[in-house]
Amino acid sequence: MQRVTNCILKDESKNQILMLKKPRYGWYVVPGGKMEQGESIKQSVVREFKEETGLDLINPELRGVFTFVVMDQLEIMREWMMFTFICDTSKGALFDYCKEGELEWVPIAEVLDKPMAEGDYFMFKHILANEHLLYGTFIYTPDDRLIDLNLDPPCQ
Amino acid sequence: MQRVTNCILKDESKNQILMLKKPRYGWYVVPGGKMEQGESIKQSVVREFKEETGLDLINPELRGVFTFVVMDQLEIMREWMMFTFICDTSKGALFDYCKEGELEWVPIAEVLDKPMAEGDYFMFKHILANEHLLYGTFIYTPDDRLIDLNLDPPCQ
Repeated sequence: MQRVTNCILKDESKNQILMLKKPRYGWYVVPGGKMEQGESIKQSVVREFKEETGLDLINPELRGVFTFVVMDQLEIMREWMMFTFICDTSKGALFDYCKEGELEWVPIAEVLDKPMAEGDYFMFKHILANEHLLYGTFIYTPDDRLIDLNLDPPCQ
Repeated sequence: MQRVTNCILKDESKNQILMLKKPRYGWYVVPGGKMEQGESIKQSVVREFKEETGLDLINPELRGVFTFVVMDQLEIMREWMMFTFICDTSKGALFDYCKEGELEWVPIAEVLDKPMAEGDYFMFKHILANEHLLYGTFIYTPDDRLIDLNLDPPCQ
C-alpha cells in the first residue's frame, strides 16, 4: 500500500505557506512524497521535503492522517494513506527548481482560492485553523473527482 | 500492507490500563486489530476496541505511529504499521470473554513488568509518561526478536 507524507511549512512572519503547483490540472499541493521501506512517517516527511525543496524541516508535527480510496463504480481500485505534518521552522536554501512542479509561497488567506483536489480543500481549511489532529477518509473516482468524505472532527 | 490500530484505555481513578494477555508467549498488548478498507485510523480503533472489549472509546487520541519491519538475515520479509491511541473515557460494559486473549486491568506501575514484545516496552514507557506523539520504526526477526529500533523522541 502506498503511503505518502507531506508538510505544510509556514512562514509565520509573512503569513504564508510553501506550496507546489503540479503540472496535473495545475493543482496546488504541499511538498512531500512516498514513504520508503522501514521509514517512520517523520523520517519520511523530512527526507521527502528536503528532496523537493532543499529545506530541512525542524520539528514537524503530525496534523492529519487520511485514508484515500479510489473507486470505480462500486469496486475499490486502490487504497492509500497520507500523513500531513505542519512545521514553522526550516533550515537551508529553497531550491529554484523542483522537478515535481513549481514551488511557490502562498499567503495563507489565498490558499483556499488555489485550484486543488476537492478533498484537499477541507484538509487545508482544518489544519490551517486548528491545532488538533484531523482524521479522515476521502473517496475519489479514477479521474480525481471526490465522491465522498468522512472527517473527524467534521468539516465546518 | 497490514495496518493495526490499538488503544491504551486508562482508568484514571484507579491508575490502571486495560490490557490483553495473548496466548502467544503470554505477552501483554492493548486491545485493537486490523484496519479495514476505507476506514480512517480513528474509525478503525473505535470498531476494533468495541469488538474485543465491548467498550465504546470516547475521544481516543493518537499517541504513536510505528513502522514494523520483519527481517530475515538482510531481507525484508514484511512491513506493517501500527497506530496507537490513548483514551481515558469509555462507555458500555467490559466483556467477560475475549477470543483474542484475557482482558485484564493492569496498574500503570506494573505495566512495564509484564511480559511483552521488546519494542512494546519502549512504546508503553513513552506513551504512559508523555503527551506528545511518538514516531518510530521497530525491526524484528521472524521469531519476534527485536533487532533494532528508531524512536523520535529517543527512548530514555
